[in-house]
Amino acid sequence: MKNFSGKRSLCSGTGVHLRVVGVSDSKSLVVTPDIKQKELDDNILSEVWRVKSDGSSLSKLSGFECQVFSNGELRTEMLGIASLLGKSTGLALVDCSASSETIGVLKQGVDLGCCIVLANKKPLTSTLEDYDKLVSRPRYIRHESTVGAGLPVISSINRIISSGDPIHRIVGSLSGTLGYVMSEVEDGKPLSQVVKSAKSLGYTEPDPRDDLSGMDVARKALILARLLGRRIELSSIRIESLYPEEMGPSKMSVEDFLNSGLVKLDNNIEERVRKASLNGNVLRYVCVIEGTRCEVGIQELPKNSALGRLRGSDNVLEIYTRCYSEQPLVIQGAGAGNDTTAAGVLADILDIQDLFP
Amino acid sequence: MKNFSGKRSLCSGTGVHLRVVGVSDSKSLVVTPDIKQKELDDNILSEVWRVKSDGSSLSKLSGFECQVFSNGELRTEMLGIASLLGKSTGLALVDCSASSETIGVLKQGVDLGCCIVLANKKPLTSTLEDYDKLVSRPRYIRHESTVGAGLPVISSINRIISSGDPIHRIVGSLSGTLGYVMSEVEDGKPLSQVVKSAKSLGYTEPDPRDDLSGMDVARKALILARLLGRRIELSSIRIESLYPEEMGPSKMSVEDFLNSGLVKLDNNIEERVRKASLNGNVLRYVCVIEGTRCEVGIQELPKNSALGRLRGSDNVLEIYTRCYSEQPLVIQGAGAGNDTTAAGVLADILDIQDLFP
Repeated sequence: MKNFSGKRSLCSGTGVHLRVVGVSDSKSLVVTPDIKQKELDDNILSEVWRVKSDGSSLSKLSGFECQVFSNGELRTEMLGIASLLGKSTGLALVDCSASSETIGVLKQGVDLGCCIVLANKKPLTSTLEDYDKLVSRPRYIRHESTVGAGLPVISSINRIISSGDPIHRIVGSLSGTLGYVMSEVEDGKPLSQVVKSAKSLGYTEPDPRDDLSGMDVARKALILARLLGRRIELSSIRIESLYPEEMGPSKMSVEDFLNSGLVKLDNNIEERVRKASLNGNVLRYVCVIEGTRCEVGIQELPKNSALGRLRGSDNVLEIYTRCYSEQPLVIQGAGAGNDTTAAGVLADILDIQDLFP
Repeated sequence: MKNFSGKRSLCSGTGVHLRVVGVSDSKSLVVTPDIKQKELDDNILSEVWRVKSDGSSLSKLSGFECQVFSNGELRTEMLGIASLLGKSTGLALVDCSASSETIGVLKQGVDLGCCIVLANKKPLTSTLEDYDKLVSRPRYIRHESTVGAGLPVISSINRIISSGDPIHRIVGSLSGTLGYVMSEVEDGKPLSQVVKSAKSLGYTEPDPRDDLSGMDVARKALILARLLGRRIELSSIRIESLYPEEMGPSKMSVEDFLNSGLVKLDNNIEERVRKASLNGNVLRYVCVIEGTRCEVGIQELPKNSALGRLRGSDNVLEIYTRCYSEQPLVIQGAGAGNDTTAAGVLADILDIQDLFP
């Protein structure tokens, strides 16, 4: 769902008022009839929420004072609003989708003076050309929820960068699923059993290989690496998948993978856990960004580091800088979930609106 | 040292230019001859740094193109600059002192439209009346380095507050000295020995009782509690001192305290460590802010929590909110030191200058 919000006005002390002028899903766009003055009120927004919670399309919305545009008109209308409100009010285009199809509109939004708030990783992990366009006005883009959901990862790294403290190294466990998996295999449980438990606990995607491939972590690593100024593409990141190519989605069904594939991976992981343990270390599935190195995979890490002590599904980020050289700056907490993602997006929107007093 | 900086202008990509129009210590004020156009250049600033590093007064500065005002004129000149540049450029008054005497100038600076950047805890832990005045324009004050030096504590809490995620509880080890002391006594070392080692390692103030009193932690706790909207004064915080009143600075010399006082406290701490350990817990010297409760002292905490796992002098903050309810959001790292304090101050200055494009 994409969310167009206009300027906020401060009301009564701590309260803030966000004027939402439009909400869109992949098929429809709902807009207030007078975008210069009015907003989608709480009744409409509640109904939007209800419709989307039911898994329906926004096109089902009716009986409210709003305009509903369907697929064909969606993009044109969106850009019309962006050109009217972008430069004058700092309209924020908020992308909470997981699609690459939003990139075009977002780029045009930048040209039209809009602010950009992203929970969607795809636009920032597209080509460097797309990336450069999106961040061309760095004060007008926020994307906290792309890495670690609402955890203050991006904002903290931005503070470090602006303070001139050079960041030497970032190591992070940025997948709750893989964090859980690695701490369970550390306890001696077979990988196959741990992945099945994770799936039944709802920790994994419907096809657990979406987590085990490391691709999601790689996108987060790319976002962090680019934030540090590395001029790299997704394809230049070394990604270790936890399953071999012959067990990939195109060659094996989810059921076969869970029932017969996974178990073949148990011994190898068990052996690696044992070897690490002999060195006093543990295995974690992490991203490592250091110098020109940007990779994603299993690393041996000291048992008594923040990452080594990690248990369960929390995300952990260790940041080493000139100031934090021996002991890193550590940020840890739940790195996924609707609530914390939404909190991160909302904080971004408010942060950006501060630029338009 | 206090540091007046004017607007920054962006130069060549990542570089930023901060125009420093004046620098002051407790006795003197050095100002650029034309505050509207010019700045203290790098040569003068290097000399300022050299003079202060030598422990001398700024009044010793000479041979540069700048005006030097002495004590009597200091305040008047400072307010003159504030009234000229406050509203027009968003001049930042930067207070890196540890004095209460700056509060008056800072409050007048607020009235004159200046932004305020503090590493000094005193102004924010003065009366509620002073506090309210200083934060009356919340977008124009930053004080990251007052708690945890450059650690992103204040900025992260502000993000959580603005996202509407209610903060239920904050528990933090906010003294590197007391963090070190508590993790060493956990290992069975006598308190007296640990404090003496800490002193010889340079971890403590010249009189270690300045750390052991808990007053510094209490000031940080008050800053956090007020950030969460608690209307309390320093006097309403329950503070556990690690030494009894009869060993206080007015009743016993530092030498007597170290040589004969401290050792009398060993048994009690040893006993408490043992009891905690029987419950599977460890002792930490923390601040706890929860509901109307705001206290500072030794608490029994689970061994496997972020605070329980803390070793050495890092600061650790656990933040419990609606989103981070079972597992807290954790921020950890060096919470003291010139470099990290300066980095926090610089990030604050740049953050605030973003409001004046």
